[in-house]
Amino acid sequence: MRVRALFGSVVFLTSFLSAFSQMTPASNQNHLMPVPATVRYQSGRMPLDSTFSVASDAKPDPRLNAAVQRMVRRLQGRTTITIPTDLKSDTASKLIIHLKAPSPALPKFGQDESYTLEISPTQAVLSANETFGAIRGLETFLQLVDSDQGGYFVPTVSIQDSPRFPWRGLLVDVGRHYEPIEILKRTLDGMAAVKMNVLHWHLTEDQGFRVESKKFPKLTEMGSDGLFYTQEQVKDIIAYAAERGIRVMPEFDMPAHTTSWFVAYPEFASAPGPYQIERGWGVFDPTFNPIDERAYKFLDEFLGEMAKLFSDDYIHIGGDESTGRQWDNNPAIQEFKKKRNLKDNAEIQTYFNQRIQKILEKHGKKMVGWDEILNPELPKDVVVESWRGDKALGAGAKQGFQGILAAPFYIDLIRPTSTHYLGDPLPANTDLTPEQQKLVLGGEACMWSEHVTPESIESRIWPRLAAVAERLWSPRDVRDVDDMYRRMDRVSVQLEELGITHESQTARMLRRMVQGRDIGPLLIFASTVQPATADQRNNLQHPTQLVPYTHLADAVVPDPPTGRQLQALVDKLIADPARKAGAAELTAIFSHWKSSVPAVTSAANQYPVLAEVLPRVQEFDQLAQMGLDAVNFVQNRSTPPAGWLPANLTAIDQMGKTRGLVRFVVLDPLHKLVQFAANAPATPPPAPEPE
Amino acid sequence: MRVRALFGSVVFLTSFLSAFSQMTPASNQNHLMPVPATVRYQSGRMPLDSTFSVASDAKPDPRLNAAVQRMVRRLQGRTTITIPTDLKSDTASKLIIHLKAPSPALPKFGQDESYTLEISPTQAVLSANETFGAIRGLETFLQLVDSDQGGYFVPTVSIQDSPRFPWRGLLVDVGRHYEPIEILKRTLDGMAAVKMNVLHWHLTEDQGFRVESKKFPKLTEMGSDGLFYTQEQVKDIIAYAAERGIRVMPEFDMPAHTTSWFVAYPEFASAPGPYQIERGWGVFDPTFNPIDERAYKFLDEFLGEMAKLFSDDYIHIGGDESTGRQWDNNPAIQEFKKKRNLKDNAEIQTYFNQRIQKILEKHGKKMVGWDEILNPELPKDVVVESWRGDKALGAGAKQGFQGILAAPFYIDLIRPTSTHYLGDPLPANTDLTPEQQKLVLGGEACMWSEHVTPESIESRIWPRLAAVAERLWSPRDVRDVDDMYRRMDRVSVQLEELGITHESQTARMLRRMVQGRDIGPLLIFASTVQPATADQRNNLQHPTQLVPYTHLADAVVPDPPTGRQLQALVDKLIADPARKAGAAELTAIFSHWKSSVPAVTSAANQYPVLAEVLPRVQEFDQLAQMGLDAVNFVQNRSTPPAGWLPANLTAIDQMGKTRGLVRFVVLDPLHKLVQFAANAPATPPPAPEPE
Repeated sequence: MRVRALFGSVVFLTSFLSAFSQMTPASNQNHLMPVPATVRYQSGRMPLDSTFSVASDAKPDPRLNAAVQRMVRRLQGRTTITIPTDLKSDTASKLIIHLKAPSPALPKFGQDESYTLEISPTQAVLSANETFGAIRGLETFLQLVDSDQGGYFVPTVSIQDSPRFPWRGLLVDVGRHYEPIEILKRTLDGMAAVKMNVLHWHLTEDQGFRVESKKFPKLTEMGSDGLFYTQEQVKDIIAYAAERGIRVMPEFDMPAHTTSWFVAYPEFASAPGPYQIERGWGVFDPTFNPIDERAYKFLDEFLGEMAKLFSDDYIHIGGDESTGRQWDNNPAIQEFKKKRNLKDNAEIQTYFNQRIQKILEKHGKKMVGWDEILNPELPKDVVVESWRGDKALGAGAKQGFQGILAAPFYIDLIRPTSTHYLGDPLPANTDLTPEQQKLVLGGEACMWSEHVTPESIESRIWPRLAAVAERLWSPRDVRDVDDMYRRMDRVSVQLEELGITHESQTARMLRRMVQGRDIGPLLIFASTVQPATADQRNNLQHPTQLVPYTHLADAVVPDPPTGRQLQALVDKLIADPARKAGAAELTAIFSHWKSSVPAVTSAANQYPVLAEVLPRVQEFDQLAQMGLDAVNFVQNRSTPPAGWLPANLTAIDQMGKTRGLVRFVVLDPLHKLVQFAANAPATPPPAPEPE
Repeated sequence: MRVRALFGSVVFLTSFLSAFSQMTPASNQNHLMPVPATVRYQSGRMPLDSTFSVASDAKPDPRLNAAVQRMVRRLQGRTTITIPTDLKSDTASKLIIHLKAPSPALPKFGQDESYTLEISPTQAVLSANETFGAIRGLETFLQLVDSDQGGYFVPTVSIQDSPRFPWRGLLVDVGRHYEPIEILKRTLDGMAAVKMNVLHWHLTEDQGFRVESKKFPKLTEMGSDGLFYTQEQVKDIIAYAAERGIRVMPEFDMPAHTTSWFVAYPEFASAPGPYQIERGWGVFDPTFNPIDERAYKFLDEFLGEMAKLFSDDYIHIGGDESTGRQWDNNPAIQEFKKKRNLKDNAEIQTYFNQRIQKILEKHGKKMVGWDEILNPELPKDVVVESWRGDKALGAGAKQGFQGILAAPFYIDLIRPTSTHYLGDPLPANTDLTPEQQKLVLGGEACMWSEHVTPESIESRIWPRLAAVAERLWSPRDVRDVDDMYRRMDRVSVQLEELGITHESQTARMLRRMVQGRDIGPLLIFASTVQPATADQRNNLQHPTQLVPYTHLADAVVPDPPTGRQLQALVDKLIADPARKAGAAELTAIFSHWKSSVPAVTSAANQYPVLAEVLPRVQEFDQLAQMGLDAVNFVQNRSTPPAGWLPANLTAIDQMGKTRGLVRFVVLDPLHKLVQFAANAPATPPPAPEPE
């Protein structure tokens, strides 16, 4: 009976571990993410009830009104309190917004995003120089909302806030997998919630050309599988972003990563066609012909059209990963190289870049490109985006180039959030002079899309993007990883208010796998694994654009809380001389794991989509058993039999391999636990203390 | 320890009850919904693997190609098998589509939707007269997909299928609450999955005017809060629907339900303005002036514009719930009435309807209206939609009018799915002649939107709409309620493939309520309740368009499976002379209920949004206890103490009340269980049978 009851039950590890801790939050604990430049909590609170309204003395600005409406709707949704959504002018309103001037019509690099927020027990005052600062402050206000038996409230607090870096972006690669407009809009909503300000829209790739050109409609007709954005949709996205103080910078990657262009225009490639949309993942040879004047004419017209369509001052021209093979094999290009005394393909590319830069300049745009474009001959208003790291970024700054950092923020790679969080465009030990440091504008998280689809992309972006957002907004010394995770877990649920599907994805995809709602046991197992890294996936599965991304690896999320929570319990147990703290919880968890195994195994037998994880499930069973045994030994102060420890360590070591496209996130705490069980002195318990 | 383990765990009742039964499905059991006109399963199967592809000998029809692509993507998603998405011409393909002729450019009333599907162990052949029939057949194919340890497969089967009724619609009221385009598109996807063919788009209401008029832009500028569909979006929806063989019929409700029109044009009302968008729910007085020629001129121009925009042959003019008060109080109208010898307001409305019908006729459209428009003087191509019931519908048919039935299909009312399912436009006992029966064209489910928002509407439509779809498509004698629920639960999860959010809604909204992921105990409680009925909600809460719909009542779903599953277990226990069957499961369920109470109570204390259900939680605790006691008495064959039964029956009776805006769905089985526990003879167990 006991076993069956457990068997049919669903355990969210998170649920088990924090059902209580959550109920009693510390008073006025900081929940803000990103952490403001300065924040000082007092012990009081301003209640939120149906007397709440928002007022402003600013000149009417529809963007402010819209932001207030959005904020109020979310506040209403959380609290079920009916609150007026329109902006009042009543100075007795609970939230007053002072604004010196409206922001310019469109967000621009370097815009003023500063604000202050002063909350007393009776009123909150949000002050900003410009609209976008007020919009950032409204997000802060919403993150402050808390509750207890007394009702909803915001803590009394004094905040002066402004960003550390002016360029805080997210690259979304819609080339390899297309993403529908509504997902981009939700992404913009989420970005605004964590105060990011650049959507870097990676629109063209070997695998797809995603933006309508009215001058060259064949680009999408032949290069997009019908999956592209119309110019109306582009305008819609730009307006949507602008309303949230977010710039939209398009990227047209060239001279390489351009196969999809050449499906329609093989004549502009450096080797004869025909070309087909690339379906595989990797680095490919098709490259623009850098010596063909017709190609430059085409690019002039195309970029001219795009320069009108996209309002931002910057256009990203990529410039990465040109293999040079087509150039090597093209006699005319080789001749040109010789004639011009260009010593290698990098110098050919510099020639190409200079031509493109002049085209962009003519159309009123500044150029951004990846590391590879860095060359002293380019003008100094070019921005170099570094996928190579802060050293490469620093090298650019030393040459006087502005730069943004991408390398540590590749969120597609499925690394721990902490890795991204601790990356820094300007680390404490930077050797740049203060002048050079000013050239470091910020950074961008990169959501490359080989392994994400509309169904999974949001769980790859969220909630981890919040950690990158904090790195780029908050002071450098905000680096407490545990505290980051605590706040990220909270923000994650708030992001779901915006319709983002990251929190619901796993259950949704598991239901489909087993064609039913009975995903309980499977969820237990799924909470202990995360997807393979991007590299592992490529090597193990060799997937392409044409394969379904609906494996367990796509359903589970990167860096789930299970591992961290288990670690906390193990640490608690090890630290307790009485060998009791956390033991009951650990036993319960491992029992649940164990009890779920038969159902998961049975599901994997009935639903072939799960067959690939069967060996992983057996390992999961083994992990549960070693966990149970270890806690038992610890609690009984008994010594495990000889061989128990090495056998388990070997097993854990084996389980470190990626298998079934997923990786365990619970191995470190189990390793620590079995080590402790084997090595802790088997002394009797201390005598009970006198009462 | 035991209690804590249970305490932190999450139990989906569904999970508990069917984790095993699901693993061993009966071979080639019918999963289709709607049930085809005729279906004959054989015992074999056709495997689905990477050799699968789809071919057609039909003339190229982009709609067929698109439908095949959609089908293949879903098949890929479920199975992770890589399958070509393009339509082949290879006759050795596993699925062959024969098509006599493409359907006309746009779906029309009465279109041919028939198809046959013959699946042998080696090949599936789908044959249809027209494209839309093939599209229906592709949905059938997808519903047939099954799996076991041997892999994915479809059963060998012979299906001849065509709909019972030609008009199978869903009304979506976007007037009271606006719904974004992407939700309408997902709704159309879902409708296609269950073979419905009319989207009845209720575009105007007292509470909002939702469609752009280029001739009268003030209608949306002043009457929509900015929430309306542009003409581009309307065309987009019509095209999206047409691709799926679904007609889009707009409704412009008049002469009443028109407050939002009069915000911009008070001069066309029967009483002086000004008017404001109505925020409350109910029946309101503002009504078009039926004697004002300027109003008819305006309606002529407006309907002329809409007649061009909407391609369907039918326009719905509402006509319901005119209070007549403005007419009674308008001396000019009274004079007109007298002069024309109109005996009551209904006759004034008939005059209005006749004028409107002529306008529609002029613009090439046929008129549809609610019951109230029924009048012998209207031409016989008018269609009457009956919200009053099949008797009213029959009365129309007897006068020679075509009709569609809405009354039993009001899915906004939160009634049991079975109620909707058993409603019938032509019940077995109809007194209509065969000729009159032909005038009954079908029916429409109605999703009135007082109490739904974009966040909750999908869980109010799905999966229950599938039951209405079956009523309107399948033969009349398909009426097995248990079998319907079994198939609906399966189809529900398949609908989630389309992005529909009904299955993920409860968890998503609960996470927001408790601002965290720890919703386990709350989910246990939530699975035992459903929302108040629409009437109860109005009476208890008096909500308006301006209040947040984010209560527990909005998070939970109508007619959840918990009640039915508990009933099945109780019935099993009662039927077992040994008094064992189901007892362990029941005890486990009631224990889980009980163990969740402290955490739910604690959450309701910390999160005021849940405070309103605290009394309900105490009742839940009580229900759990009486369930545990009852099973105990039954198993021990002991008699409950005097007073136990009446006390519990009184308690259950009390709990029948709607409270905290939710209703229990588990009272009937508990009632039966405690009755049985009290009244079953307390005999000793039967002697064990000899081995």
